[in-house]
Amino acid sequence: MPKIYINPPRQQWLSILQRPAPEQTQNQDFIRQLFEEVQREGDHALKRYALALDKFEGDWLVTEQEFEAAEALISVELKSALELAYQNIYRFHQAELPESVGVETMQGVWCERRAFPIEKVGLYIPGGSAPLFSTVLMLGIPAQLAGCAEVVLCSPPQPDGSIHPAILYAAKRCNIQKVLKIGGAQAIAGMALGTASVPKCSKLFGPGNRWVTAAKQYASSLGTAIDMPAGPSEVLVLADQTANPVFVAADLLAQAEHGSDSQVLLVSTHKALLQQVEQELEKLSENLSRRSYIQQTLQHSCLIYVPNRKEAIDLVNLYAPEHLIIQSQDEQWYTENVRNAGSVFLGDWSPESVGDYASGTNHTLPTAGFAEAWSGVSVESFMKFITFQKLSPEGLRGLGTAVETLAHAETLEAHALAVSVRLSALKTKT
Amino acid sequence: MPKIYINPPRQQWLSILQRPAPEQTQNQDFIRQLFEEVQREGDHALKRYALALDKFEGDWLVTEQEFEAAEALISVELKSALELAYQNIYRFHQAELPESVGVETMQGVWCERRAFPIEKVGLYIPGGSAPLFSTVLMLGIPAQLAGCAEVVLCSPPQPDGSIHPAILYAAKRCNIQKVLKIGGAQAIAGMALGTASVPKCSKLFGPGNRWVTAAKQYASSLGTAIDMPAGPSEVLVLADQTANPVFVAADLLAQAEHGSDSQVLLVSTHKALLQQVEQELEKLSENLSRRSYIQQTLQHSCLIYVPNRKEAIDLVNLYAPEHLIIQSQDEQWYTENVRNAGSVFLGDWSPESVGDYASGTNHTLPTAGFAEAWSGVSVESFMKFITFQKLSPEGLRGLGTAVETLAHAETLEAHALAVSVRLSALKTKT
Repeated sequence: MPKIYINPPRQQWLSILQRPAPEQTQNQDFIRQLFEEVQREGDHALKRYALALDKFEGDWLVTEQEFEAAEALISVELKSALELAYQNIYRFHQAELPESVGVETMQGVWCERRAFPIEKVGLYIPGGSAPLFSTVLMLGIPAQLAGCAEVVLCSPPQPDGSIHPAILYAAKRCNIQKVLKIGGAQAIAGMALGTASVPKCSKLFGPGNRWVTAAKQYASSLGTAIDMPAGPSEVLVLADQTANPVFVAADLLAQAEHGSDSQVLLVSTHKALLQQVEQELEKLSENLSRRSYIQQTLQHSCLIYVPNRKEAIDLVNLYAPEHLIIQSQDEQWYTENVRNAGSVFLGDWSPESVGDYASGTNHTLPTAGFAEAWSGVSVESFMKFITFQKLSPEGLRGLGTAVETLAHAETLEAHALAVSVRLSALKTKT
Repeated sequence: MPKIYINPPRQQWLSILQRPAPEQTQNQDFIRQLFEEVQREGDHALKRYALALDKFEGDWLVTEQEFEAAEALISVELKSALELAYQNIYRFHQAELPESVGVETMQGVWCERRAFPIEKVGLYIPGGSAPLFSTVLMLGIPAQLAGCAEVVLCSPPQPDGSIHPAILYAAKRCNIQKVLKIGGAQAIAGMALGTASVPKCSKLFGPGNRWVTAAKQYASSLGTAIDMPAGPSEVLVLADQTANPVFVAADLLAQAEHGSDSQVLLVSTHKALLQQVEQELEKLSENLSRRSYIQQTLQHSCLIYVPNRKEAIDLVNLYAPEHLIIQSQDEQWYTENVRNAGSVFLGDWSPESVGDYASGTNHTLPTAGFAEAWSGVSVESFMKFITFQKLSPEGLRGLGTAVETLAHAETLEAHALAVSVRLSALKTKT
């Protein structure tokens, strides 16, 4: 059961909010060696790892027949739920599409910034216990809206050599044509370096186990962009006497079932709520299939009472939770004062699970306190900006002398020269 | 003198465009040890390194008196040039300020995305041969516009224990109050980890030598965000028979003077231009003070003839230059077809130096081909986005069943439970 803290002093906050240390990859050398082998031998190395780690042999490119077979296996109910999710996610991310910015900063000096898709991107979707087709939508839709020319999706084959039909169905819905049955760290190495059959990608996205995370970090150190640093998922529920303890407990459990290293926190300005929630946690978790995960997670989770909303929001901003659920009569005040969070869920009828699947916002969010400086995935995560500028002769006449002065003060004479040869030419002209 | 290639076959492009290998930090262990000492001993460790590496003892916080003394040392001419630059950069970056996005994705489901400043950011400004006060503006202005609550600037002290007055003057102009005389990798460690006198920053910005770069990379691996991976500066000039060879040569020289590992390329659809530019390079570089840098850089630089604009733009997009200068009658066609570049300079009167200093665009740009996936620094580099969502009872009624279906299909029962306990409550209500 979770730990309970009643009005802990501020100097204890950091240690109370300490996240469980993530599992360390013992073997950084394994990752380095994997990358070296893939760099040197390409597909041959990938095939060797596929056989050794996934017991997989054969073609890894998913065929049109496999896509069709997958579609036939999806129930009408799941299809229509996926379609609803697709439409909402598409609508929200479409609104995020960045616009060009153009400014004449002074007469004759035109500056502009335009967004461009990143041409080749790679998505990784884990296999394992839960087939994360929702993540396919969360990455595939913004990639589609951004206009990425090539989207590659790697996912490990199941024991029978197939990929879960819901993953294939979601990929097809996002117009992803290249799905490869390659798993784990070797998929990351393949997409980062490129081989004969795996396109080299400029940016990699998606969750994964500690090997995948270590491989993404290593790829990042070699210059491939990644979506964000990864950590275990977490939720902080901020609630007062107006909150329903059953809803609060269910929200904590939804997070706790992700895995034993998840973290769930309740911060409340209403002392009695802590005990009520504790009782509901007990009751509600009884029949859940992932009970063993849940019990492990709850052991390092906390229910915290603080005496007022100022203390509560300071604690939230210090923790910088991936998910923040606010069930309080002070909802508006909290909304105005939150500074660090990945995604915020407001009121009684906005459980985190709606955002995880179908409301429209992205569920790929910064964990581990990274919300201080990082954002969740958006359309812009699949784009980059290029600035353009054009000066007229008049523009250069107005700006040139200042640039010469600045360049000389930085002792960069050739920078000044590039202006002065032009100013001379303009003088000759007139 | 640069290498000359006449219509090289495509299969040779990658090797021709190979960037000079960056200087490697021999001693990754040094960086790790530095971070461990700063983590353990805080300011004591920083003081030890300051004494050993910068021969500096005493207070490192720049005082109000020092700011005032600096201001008195700046010429009227330089002040007015800096002010012009400030105004243009401010104007362009102000236009970049992101707007909130709000969408009702379906009835009763409100989703929103708002931008927030990153609260604590750290800027590093190198000392060394050129006092890069222009970089203070390029980082300080977007930080100011973003509304970062605390902006820390570290820069190494000069031999007399001061910081170059133009750096202090530019910092003050950007309302940066905390300037610390701390140099090199130890400044990065201090800002990443935080000490009694150096605030812990969530994101670090700015150029630096290979030790600073290695320290930023290491900080990044520990979870501190950084502006972008660093590499030597570079320019690609795309020119045809309408280009002025003097302007082209001056632009190449302005890049070449940055350091011996810079790279400069000319790609031209007009064969005779190569020789003309080569002659002008010779002539113009004769009297430049940084001639030795320039000669080294030119040795690994290339002048490339290609027979048509399609070949030219393909080569540009493959290289993904930090700076792209286009002096061609096909300017518009190139502008429509460029895909990978940091910043683009159009026409005869837009030398790169105007963008380096004063036109308004940012000069902190992706090098080394990172322009494939990264953007230059912008106001958004100093911000993050938080999504918010709120469902009405009607919204949850419309979306809830789909979420339950999706959660069950991913075998995440507690995710479904968080919805079903609410749907039950809503049924009881009505």
